[in-house]
Amino acid sequence: MNKEPTLKEIREAYERIKPYIHRTPVLTCDALNRMCDAELFFKCENFQKVGAFKTRGATNTVFSLSDEEASKGVATHSSGNHAAALSLAAQRRGIKAYVVMPKNAPMIKQNAVKGYGAEITFCEPTLKAREDTLAEVVKRTGAAFVHPYNDYRVIAGQGTAALELLEEVPDLDMVMAPVGGGGLLSGTAISVSSISPKTEVIAAEPQGADDAYRSFHSGELIPSVNPDTIADGLLTSLGDKTFPVIRKYVKDIVTVTEEGIILAMRNIWERMKIIVETSAAVPFGAILTNRIEASGKRIGIILSGGNVDLEKLPWNK
Amino acid sequence: MNKEPTLKEIREAYERIKPYIHRTPVLTCDALNRMCDAELFFKCENFQKVGAFKTRGATNTVFSLSDEEASKGVATHSSGNHAAALSLAAQRRGIKAYVVMPKNAPMIKQNAVKGYGAEITFCEPTLKAREDTLAEVVKRTGAAFVHPYNDYRVIAGQGTAALELLEEVPDLDMVMAPVGGGGLLSGTAISVSSISPKTEVIAAEPQGADDAYRSFHSGELIPSVNPDTIADGLLTSLGDKTFPVIRKYVKDIVTVTEEGIILAMRNIWERMKIIVETSAAVPFGAILTNRIEASGKRIGIILSGGNVDLEKLPWNK
Repeated sequence: MNKEPTLKEIREAYERIKPYIHRTPVLTCDALNRMCDAELFFKCENFQKVGAFKTRGATNTVFSLSDEEASKGVATHSSGNHAAALSLAAQRRGIKAYVVMPKNAPMIKQNAVKGYGAEITFCEPTLKAREDTLAEVVKRTGAAFVHPYNDYRVIAGQGTAALELLEEVPDLDMVMAPVGGGGLLSGTAISVSSISPKTEVIAAEPQGADDAYRSFHSGELIPSVNPDTIADGLLTSLGDKTFPVIRKYVKDIVTVTEEGIILAMRNIWERMKIIVETSAAVPFGAILTNRIEASGKRIGIILSGGNVDLEKLPWNK
Repeated sequence: MNKEPTLKEIREAYERIKPYIHRTPVLTCDALNRMCDAELFFKCENFQKVGAFKTRGATNTVFSLSDEEASKGVATHSSGNHAAALSLAAQRRGIKAYVVMPKNAPMIKQNAVKGYGAEITFCEPTLKAREDTLAEVVKRTGAAFVHPYNDYRVIAGQGTAALELLEEVPDLDMVMAPVGGGGLLSGTAISVSSISPKTEVIAAEPQGADDAYRSFHSGELIPSVNPDTIADGLLTSLGDKTFPVIRKYVKDIVTVTEEGIILAMRNIWERMKIIVETSAAVPFGAILTNRIEASGKRIGIILSGGNVDLEKLPWNK
């Protein structure tokens, strides 16, 4: 796929990945609705396989490969949800997955990837070491590199979450997603603007990692430099494939303070009784801290994931 | 209601409370199924209003009262989920709720009850003080006392959770519930044995509060003395209305260690991404620690509630 996906391609992605993913529920919560005088519809990708929406994009990419491309496996560098999602997708297709990880990656993340049968290559914990090591792995194995977000097949896969959301709740004023590299946001924006042009797409980003906010408002791709936020899934920069899509289809990007993110996460845990990770709480944080005008609106929110270290919760310092 | 409810009365309770409760989802989890080689169906009463199944029994009782009985309000002594559930039900019917609470009850529980408009009377933190204070409140106000579990209307209400579960997943080998005072277990046992006689009802109890286990196996009601368990919703003794129902319809009661309860709770949080309280984790703990033979079976599990102090998690000591 060498141009941005259309709704048709997102629908094709959906048919392709349907046997391998969960159709996640859309939950509502009276208490949170009252709290912000709005009707909120939470698309629970924290319940997705691997605990995050990343399963959609990785699965679409793995099952989009020709048999020849697939025969040598897939590779990525990531210590997060994308690596686990790619490993699971490869396992389901019966091909190899190679994951490059910094050697200080938490044991729980190493084990998740190993559990899906991936081969880990450790490297020094720098971006350069990760890229160099990945290049070596790809050269040695011939595996297809699958980028966590700057890939149209990945974007098409991520767009299927909003597809399901709008099928279930068609009449929304707004759909919100968090933004890190922009894969989820791009796919969401294409789906929403194609299916329901009157529905605004608004992204939320941590104030301590506001490169997408600054890129969006300046019109130039500004990379993320020394981001500092508890929302560790949102540290990356936009890519040259996600940024143009976001400029075209996203109405606004707003930022949220660390306090706002933690407050939102805690309220989702306490009121909805579901576990979401810090990054997933950012859009609701934007509502709670009045960074967007939510009053009286019907708002879909994509809860991006639920992978949390239960021994290190942000309110237990 | 002066005799044990039948399925017909549980169905009537369901019609009565339907406008006021959530129909909670039944969730499954591949990872937990693999872990115990069984098919588990979790009935999520942690998502119920007030965060616990108690809303069913309290609502049924409040809406079963005649206008005359209701006119003077309802009363109970409890610092837990029942008090909040009764307060909410009274608010929905537009009558008063009086709650007797030990003066050292956590502020969060006081506020929950106050938030539903109940009037709190504080007492010394002893059982005698609670009962005496309740008697005074009832004498002063004429309110109808609603026991947390030893009441056939409450039992009928609690039985509606299993009704919904069996409607959704008819073909179960076993249904499991935790047991404290036995309200949930009694209602569940009547529903299950009436609708699906071949489905066994098994209860799980903390080893440190095993009065129901000992009562069941000796045939005599043995009160709970100095119970010591993290599952603080299961400290109470069976009542003279719940014990006979349990003897008649329950196949077995098994006990679970503290380690087993915590292991189960943590696995539900980590794998299912949902928040359950310690008491709710006890049945799955019985499976995880091999206190029942689960292999190859289809098992319904009632997750009784999700009210947890997020600052005091059992794995963060």
